[in-house]
Amino acid sequence: MSERKISTAVIKRLPRYYRYLGDLLEKDVVRISSKELSERMGVTASQIRQDLNNFGGFGQQGYGYNVGYLYYEIGKILGLEEKHSLVIIGVGNLGQALANYTKFDKRGFDIEGLFDVNPRLVGMTVRGIEIRDIDEVYDFVRENNIHIAVLTLPRLKAPQIANELVESGIKGIWNFTPIDLKLDEEKVQVENVHLLDSLMTLSYKISNQ
Amino acid sequence: MSERKISTAVIKRLPRYYRYLGDLLEKDVVRISSKELSERMGVTASQIRQDLNNFGGFGQQGYGYNVGYLYYEIGKILGLEEKHSLVIIGVGNLGQALANYTKFDKRGFDIEGLFDVNPRLVGMTVRGIEIRDIDEVYDFVRENNIHIAVLTLPRLKAPQIANELVESGIKGIWNFTPIDLKLDEEKVQVENVHLLDSLMTLSYKISNQ
Repeated sequence: MSERKISTAVIKRLPRYYRYLGDLLEKDVVRISSKELSERMGVTASQIRQDLNNFGGFGQQGYGYNVGYLYYEIGKILGLEEKHSLVIIGVGNLGQALANYTKFDKRGFDIEGLFDVNPRLVGMTVRGIEIRDIDEVYDFVRENNIHIAVLTLPRLKAPQIANELVESGIKGIWNFTPIDLKLDEEKVQVENVHLLDSLMTLSYKISNQ
Repeated sequence: MSERKISTAVIKRLPRYYRYLGDLLEKDVVRISSKELSERMGVTASQIRQDLNNFGGFGQQGYGYNVGYLYYEIGKILGLEEKHSLVIIGVGNLGQALANYTKFDKRGFDIEGLFDVNPRLVGMTVRGIEIRDIDEVYDFVRENNIHIAVLTLPRLKAPQIANELVESGIKGIWNFTPIDLKLDEEKVQVENVHLLDSLMTLSYKISNQ
């Protein structure tokens, strides 16, 4: 059922569905109509039906959606059935904050290695994980079959390190550096979190309110 | 010239233009053709011309763009001429990471207050700013004409605190909590950074590569 090309807009909405369904599960909600889900999420019921039809539907007419089943299925589509192993490269404030973010573990994202150039950080531990020298990251990625590299390091070093990570077999880069990495999309997927871009977007909205 | 309604897609691209132009300025590039800028940014030259025409153009036929002028003008559109005062609510790992992020200052985003519920944190300082009790944030926002509240606190408390911030006159909320705030768009602008959504999007891309 995932043969069709799914639009980026739909993909961007999937984690949000997953988040809302997770909240409903926590509140022991077993079943929800597309109308009620749409009211909670602030999108139209027809949008929800259309989005989920991309993946085969999941709803029954007059019954609504089974929350647990839909949560499970969307999780599967998002690739959350499989464990994802991560390394964080750059263990400054942001890298440490991400290393301490327990929500990632719960979703199957396991942080397995921390790397930094700063000799003062190397050898220290964060949540029981030792910080290693950045030169060791490529072998570490190869030997431990690491899927995702989180880049929270200075921008100047990012392109070269990203290239070497791709050579080492990394499958995804979660890029927090303020540059757009130019990498082979056949080999690696990139997701950017450009914090300053986001803050400037907020500034624009405030100024043009 | 900002009378027309600008599409969200264009607005989202503006910080990226600003970022690339800032890089060019640092390299002392004075002038750039839309062709060259488009190659660097990985968008078409006609896209760039269209985007910038929303704001009156800025380019001259056969001359290209004056980098410094364009940087200045886009900064103005983004509301960066005006200083923005911020408070960070929730000074855990992520809040501290953001408090230490010097790039914000450089763009005119001044962190003026830090607030937390945790009595062990209250009284400590980060970058010379004392962490105060969260109950004090509303008066602080009123008295210091704070524009933006950064929410890096547990999700359960976020909706009520956001509502009270709006009552206190906050103009923008930079929301790092994993919920979508439902607030009056006439009064306050919200920009979300849902980290786990972003990581799940990356997981999707890897799984469906």
